[in-house]
Amino acid sequence: MARAITEVDALEVIRAGHTGRLGCIDNNEPYVVPINYLLDDGAIYSHSLPGKKTNAMRAHRRVCVQVDDVEGDFGWRSAIAFGDFEEIDQEYERQVFLTKLLSIFPKLTPVESTMAHDAAAPDSIVFRIVIDRVTGVEEE
Amino acid sequence: MARAITEVDALEVIRAGHTGRLGCIDNNEPYVVPINYLLDDGAIYSHSLPGKKTNAMRAHRRVCVQVDDVEGDFGWRSAIAFGDFEEIDQEYERQVFLTKLLSIFPKLTPVESTMAHDAAAPDSIVFRIVIDRVTGVEEE
Repeated sequence: MARAITEVDALEVIRAGHTGRLGCIDNNEPYVVPINYLLDDGAIYSHSLPGKKTNAMRAHRRVCVQVDDVEGDFGWRSAIAFGDFEEIDQEYERQVFLTKLLSIFPKLTPVESTMAHDAAAPDSIVFRIVIDRVTGVEEE
Repeated sequence: MARAITEVDALEVIRAGHTGRLGCIDNNEPYVVPINYLLDDGAIYSHSLPGKKTNAMRAHRRVCVQVDDVEGDFGWRSAIAFGDFEEIDQEYERQVFLTKLLSIFPKLTPVESTMAHDAAAPDSIVFRIVIDRVTGVEEE
């Protein structure tokens, strides 16, 4: 049976993961997409080209990110972090996190890699989700 | 760059997968959990013990299931099916799908396996999501 894990352990699942599933609400309908992310100081950072996902988060800021570890030594663990979407508009901070994200995920496309080195590229949206609640379960 | 795939290909990603991420809405907040499922005649079937997930779906029937295939020959593909939650109350149909689900996913816990052979076990909720829209993207 699955059982709850502590907030600390749930946050560790999020920290250890690199790919999660972002859940957002689009016109009263749930929408889920895979994202690459990094955890920094209690917030999940990611980036995206403009589209359905970013439109949905701008319209309904409450989102979640679910991360699981099914290959680990602990059977499986799944964690979910809830928080509010915040777009990073300040250009220096935007570049710092875009560069960090691209250094962690080298398999990004050439277009995205170009963006990281082109401060004029306006299209890539960098955002954070400030976590205010995290829960998790595990099954051994 | 990711590009859209056809509905037929997106449904094939769903059919080929066994684990997806169910997205639902819980008190105006998105909620995402991994589920095992099977696709049968245009609907996703799964089961769950009572809890947050089933409470959320009963209160807000509009849900989605996201499935991705990152290990395939096609780079990666991700698909998302949208539909309405329907609880399967009719006992014969409930047993048929519970047995099918448990035959596909032999790693279920002893408690769940017991349920499959015990028609009196009332706790396990069997449900389907009748798909009315499916979309997908791929990146080679």
